[in-house]
Amino acid sequence: MTTPPTPRYDYEHSPEAIYRQSFATIRAEADLLGLAEDVRPVAVRMIHACGDPGLVDELVSHPALVTATRDALAAGAPIFTDAMMIASGITRRRLPKDNDIVCRLDDPRARELARSWRTTRSAAAVSLWGPRVAGSVVAIGNAPTALFHLLELIADGGHRPAAIIGIPVGFVGSAESKRALADNPWDIPFLVVHGRRGGSALCVAAINALAQESEL
Amino acid sequence: MTTPPTPRYDYEHSPEAIYRQSFATIRAEADLLGLAEDVRPVAVRMIHACGDPGLVDELVSHPALVTATRDALAAGAPIFTDAMMIASGITRRRLPKDNDIVCRLDDPRARELARSWRTTRSAAAVSLWGPRVAGSVVAIGNAPTALFHLLELIADGGHRPAAIIGIPVGFVGSAESKRALADNPWDIPFLVVHGRRGGSALCVAAINALAQESEL
Repeated sequence: MTTPPTPRYDYEHSPEAIYRQSFATIRAEADLLGLAEDVRPVAVRMIHACGDPGLVDELVSHPALVTATRDALAAGAPIFTDAMMIASGITRRRLPKDNDIVCRLDDPRARELARSWRTTRSAAAVSLWGPRVAGSVVAIGNAPTALFHLLELIADGGHRPAAIIGIPVGFVGSAESKRALADNPWDIPFLVVHGRRGGSALCVAAINALAQESEL
Repeated sequence: MTTPPTPRYDYEHSPEAIYRQSFATIRAEADLLGLAEDVRPVAVRMIHACGDPGLVDELVSHPALVTATRDALAAGAPIFTDAMMIASGITRRRLPKDNDIVCRLDDPRARELARSWRTTRSAAAVSLWGPRVAGSVVAIGNAPTALFHLLELIADGGHRPAAIIGIPVGFVGSAESKRALADNPWDIPFLVVHGRRGGSALCVAAINALAQESEL
């Protein structure tokens, strides 16, 4: 335990060197120029999380996305999310105000509401977020139904988040839900990965990059 | 709270219908025929988690992967992983024996060893897994250094897992670490996604599919 294994493979061990080389490779390969300058570090982190520089072609954000998210977090706003994996993946020490991270997926009421409304538990859980959604940061990285549900609550006059990271994944409703977010008529700042791609790892990378300007 | 929002978007709400349509789309679009029959449901789940049927082109597994993993879990073997997000994402109710899921990344000794060995905390944490690695299921979905480190420990005569899911992501060492796993001289059953792609969401999808034959 007190000695490392015998080196047999030739690989980079230094965390700093790995990050430096990774980000340099991403910057060399990904065409970031189409993105607003303050979104580029977010895109780099997201590419780092999935291993595909081509992701940049599907990434679209509202001009106020970065400032709105950072201002909300600096003011102590909570982060609402649709998946426990996202809550688990967000790096607490990057959050400026030890911000709450709220996921209601495991709330027993989510299951009951989902059954009675004939929808997914992920969508029903959004109805349990409550008034603190006002001015919050929302991070949806799993269920298209959760994103549609949130937009419908807002359309009904519900509380509006300060920013919505919408990166649900999949083959049914995912692309459509992200188009709906990008077309939201309330001018709510957003980040989306258009198409089918998405998921908790991408969503966590986005939030971690948005939470703090520092690259590492 | 007791009423759902007014429907405004046309989308599928039923969880069962969403799964059914998703898996049907994946089976229609992904070329699964190159994979062993028992690996196809695992591939479907992984494609479901990332939204890209093209993933199948990089997916390679050892012929005994599925049976070795299922036998180990059925015997109560723990799952060792390199990332808290993976530990968080594995669906406990799919595990046949309430199997332990172990991640040592947050162990203070991992930080100390990493510093003294000049490697990553992810790699050093692997040295803290201990003797229960023998016959276990390993799920590496983040750090190439963790996978290299594990293979070096095994080469030194360390305990051998029953199966290794090796899906680290990234631009530095990721592809190389997965080639090293696929070429492991000890005939340890493995699953890899060759190249740069990988990550915790893909790794969790693989484990969840391997843990139980049931598709949902």
